[in-house]
Amino acid sequence: MVESYREAPEISASAWLNTEEPLSLRALRGKVVMVHAFQMLCPACVMQGTPQASAVAECFVDEPLQVIGLHSVFEHHRVMGVEALRVFVHEFRLAFPIAVDQAAENSAVPVTMQKLALRGTPSVVLIDKQGLLRFSHFGRLSDMQLGGMIGQLLAE
Amino acid sequence: MVESYREAPEISASAWLNTEEPLSLRALRGKVVMVHAFQMLCPACVMQGTPQASAVAECFVDEPLQVIGLHSVFEHHRVMGVEALRVFVHEFRLAFPIAVDQAAENSAVPVTMQKLALRGTPSVVLIDKQGLLRFSHFGRLSDMQLGGMIGQLLAE
Amino acid sequence: MVESYREAPEISASAWLNTEEPLSLRALRGKVVMVHAFQMLCPACVMQGTPQASAVAECFVDEPLQVIGLHSVFEHHRVMGVEALRVFVHEFRLAFPIAVDQAAENSAVPVTMQKLALRGTPSVVLIDKQGLLRFSHFGRLSDMQLGGMIGQLLAE
Amino acid sequence: MVESYREAPEISASAWLNTEEPLSLRALRGKVVMVHAFQMLCPACVMQGTPQASAVAECFVDEPLQVIGLHSVFEHHRVMGVEALRVFVHEFRLAFPIAVDQAAENSAVPVTMQKLALRGTPSVVLIDKQGLLRFSHFGRLSDMQLGGMIGQLLAE
Repeated sequence: MVESYREAPEISASAWLNTEEPLSLRALRGKVVMVHAFQMLCPACVMQGTPQASAVAECFVDEPLQVIGLHSVFEHHRVMGVEALRVFVHEFRLAFPIAVDQAAENSAVPVTMQKLALRGTPSVVLIDKQGLLRFSHFGRLSDMQLGGMIGQLLAE
Repeated sequence: MVESYREAPEISASAWLNTEEPLSLRALRGKVVMVHAFQMLCPACVMQGTPQASAVAECFVDEPLQVIGLHSVFEHHRVMGVEALRVFVHEFRLAFPIAVDQAAENSAVPVTMQKLALRGTPSVVLIDKQGLLRFSHFGRLSDMQLGGMIGQLLAE
Repeated sequence: MVESYREAPEISASAWLNTEEPLSLRALRGKVVMVHAFQMLCPACVMQGTPQASAVAECFVDEPLQVIGLHSVFEHHRVMGVEALRVFVHEFRLAFPIAVDQAAENSAVPVTMQKLALRGTPSVVLIDKQGLLRFSHFGRLSDMQLGGMIGQLLAE
Repeated sequence: MVESYREAPEISASAWLNTEEPLSLRALRGKVVMVHAFQMLCPACVMQGTPQASAVAECFVDEPLQVIGLHSVFEHHRVMGVEALRVFVHEFRLAFPIAVDQAAENSAVPVTMQKLALRGTPSVVLIDKQGLLRFSHFGRLSDMQLGGMIGQLLAE
């Protein structure tokens, strides 16, 4: 019996930072994609998840891997707008592309966060070279576990 | 030859968090005071200085010591206002009293930061039981060094 | 152009700890093997490499991976004999199988260390499911980098 | 009511490392003394206590403080003799003076460990400038707590 995975939903973004052009998962076929969903005032993001995402981008710089930050604000929207995010990204020296998750019309939870069914921040989503949704995790992951999963997807 | 220290200047605050009444250094005579000057979007503050200030408050909870946070915003003022600070303090579970350093009329550098001649954030200022300014440091301090200095001031 | 790798040389051991039967690389075909070469009184081994080897064993416990410790003593032989090693392994709660690298007749450097051409301790050697020598590294590796390489070999 | 402390018992050593002359607590009056009791194959010593003792010696290098290691072997005596200890001290770059706790005639527990009533390793003992036994702790201490206590004793 073979597991089957669904296609990852496209990222819906109202703005992008650290990239001249918006990224699309479709255009990234052939690469492994790691989405790091975060909020700039979420302690576990700032202290652990976001530095880990930067470490992933550095560690696998020679591999077909794309790290994408996803700023999925679902609380305290007034103080985590795009102007504040730009300061955060500048001060914390984040270098990977970051999508501002698009606000939903009737929910505090933004659109991509809903489509990915994320439970909170930080979350890690791994998408394989075919664009399939292979792994989604809310909370802390060890560097070794995350590295191991990325290595497996890179080798496919 | 005996070193002589000047009296610590009073804190000028436009608001206080985590305390019902504003604190004054004068009223704290008899206690050692540690001022932790920070900005909520300064990485070395968030990653090191602010957790260390919380650790000081916990470690010396039974001693006559008062930790005071001083939110000295000297850049990116628009995204580090008091509403954003309240979210930061709530999310990062900061429990010690925090003064919002009073904006200066003709300078981006707020009033208390000027009076204390701080070079940036994070900074640690230690004030002895007599209210004298004993130590001021910009940047990282080891827990051992900071603990050692606080211990010496407590024993005086 | 395809890279080609040589077969990993067999481990020559004068004793084994934490296993009832000696292990052989030949019998481990089908599994990825990580060899952690160490000395019990080498600081970088004790502080970093050996705990990392234990973490690898735990992290990939459900995968076809075998961690093997290799006690390759090339200095201070008198105080790192097998009796001392047994105490070290017991006190540090090491659970993975450990080979005592066989002393060479005319060299301070033991036999397996010579066959693997290791430069010192700690060293990590990765052997793929076919028994080929894929990676050898002297010194520190990040958990993410090591996890990534193991993940790639597991997926082949 | 004033607490009263007893005089610290003298260290009984069968050998000293990292010092030309044996040290005596009596000759150290006027200095604060920190005794770090350890065993070279005790994980909590090697990973935490011994590096912390080195950090204390560095942090307070300009203060009247003497760090003394005390190798109190109470188990596995055969593999933690003085020859093994010399290798350990050399490899781990320990620079503070170290006493080999004198073996007792009718006990596995060495003499100084008995006199200090230590429960195990690592232990920290703090002796004030008058030679009084002010603090004894078995197990882990935070750098901040230890720094704070040393600071208080230095200021007396």
